[in-house]
Amino acid sequence: MLPTPKKYFVTAASSEGRSKLTAFDNALLKARIGNVNLLRVSSILPPGCQHDPDLVLPPGSLVPTAYGYIVSDVPGEVISACVGVGINSSDTFGVIMEFSGKCSKEEAEQAITNMVKEAFETRGMELKEIKIASTEHKVEKIGCALAAVPLWY
Amino acid sequence: MLPTPKKYFVTAASSEGRSKLTAFDNALLKARIGNVNLLRVSSILPPGCQHDPDLVLPPGSLVPTAYGYIVSDVPGEVISACVGVGINSSDTFGVIMEFSGKCSKEEAEQAITNMVKEAFETRGMELKEIKIASTEHKVEKIGCALAAVPLWY
Amino acid sequence: MLPTPKKYFVTAASSEGRSKLTAFDNALLKARIGNVNLLRVSSILPPGCQHDPDLVLPPGSLVPTAYGYIVSDVPGEVISACVGVGINSSDTFGVIMEFSGKCSKEEAEQAITNMVKEAFETRGMELKEIKIASTEHKVEKIGCALAAVPLWY
Repeated sequence: MLPTPKKYFVTAASSEGRSKLTAFDNALLKARIGNVNLLRVSSILPPGCQHDPDLVLPPGSLVPTAYGYIVSDVPGEVISACVGVGINSSDTFGVIMEFSGKCSKEEAEQAITNMVKEAFETRGMELKEIKIASTEHKVEKIGCALAAVPLWY
Repeated sequence: MLPTPKKYFVTAASSEGRSKLTAFDNALLKARIGNVNLLRVSSILPPGCQHDPDLVLPPGSLVPTAYGYIVSDVPGEVISACVGVGINSSDTFGVIMEFSGKCSKEEAEQAITNMVKEAFETRGMELKEIKIASTEHKVEKIGCALAAVPLWY
Repeated sequence: MLPTPKKYFVTAASSEGRSKLTAFDNALLKARIGNVNLLRVSSILPPGCQHDPDLVLPPGSLVPTAYGYIVSDVPGEVISACVGVGINSSDTFGVIMEFSGKCSKEEAEQAITNMVKEAFETRGMELKEIKIASTEHKVEKIGCALAAVPLWY
């Protein structure tokens, strides 16, 4: 099997770019995950996976990552992205949720909080804590708001 | 290289949720793949990969999975998702197709059957069998129909 | 951690299909990546990763791949896809960009060139070379244009 990740951090950033993909690329760079190969996952915090905000990811490595983002080319539009990691009160797995939309950062955080709570309720698990990262951006020309939970080893 | 999967199963389920992402999450749970990290793949059944309907996936593990899904927030709308695994008459690889749409389960299954047949024709391979999983859902508030082929070890 | 890829090639192809997914499947086959499981990545060329245009990928294997594609069912519409790999003048990592749209191959290549240049500028890196693969297709019934950078070992 593929090795199960053991560490994670949460991150969020916004950026402008000259194109939609480079706006995304620039937001990844600001979020400290621009020089790796993101493998998008949906979205469980593995049992025992430890929060490590100082993780340094080797350039070009394959990094399983839960993320949400939104790109807009409508000047003045407000966009936001948020991720939340729901930590279990017992020592088993957690749940990761991501959200992006044309809304404020506060609305994105509220949406994430509700989603994580629902995910824990559905699983009959007790929620100890939610780690959140969020970002809000007012588009100048072409902007991207991105939030991510990179999983690592 | 990354290890090539050796086992698989087919699954499909529908669910409601309070948001689009939790509707998806709830459908994953009902399909028995809600507590793992799906890595979306497109979509070949590796040579020798065995059907194992009783597979139990460890929580948080990285699971290469071909899947299709549709989320709708239009009450009354009928949505369906279907996957099909085309098995080769000789002992080489097979082909996985996924489909989702605003249609009945029967239409989704027919679409999948046609797609698998076309994929085999194109490759000049003989089709022995198609394993199908499908689901249909009438949306109440926010619903998701999902079909998946998890690949495992 | 997951093993970091060591080889790559660039490829692009277009095809018709009887459905949108089989048009995509047929384009993958013409691009020589139709019989593997693509794991979509975004999108860095790992340090030391070597160009190998003759790579043969084992059927069913998991292949980290940066790709862009567009599917259209509008007869007569011109669609294009392009990838570009920006190679660094020093021996560190490069950047991969992908693009697809309703435009000519030349426009797609120009977009990719601009995106790779921006990605290098942002990172303060010097661009030695861009390897490009692109394809243009005039849709008959249902067509797909696809460009990809498979990463391998």
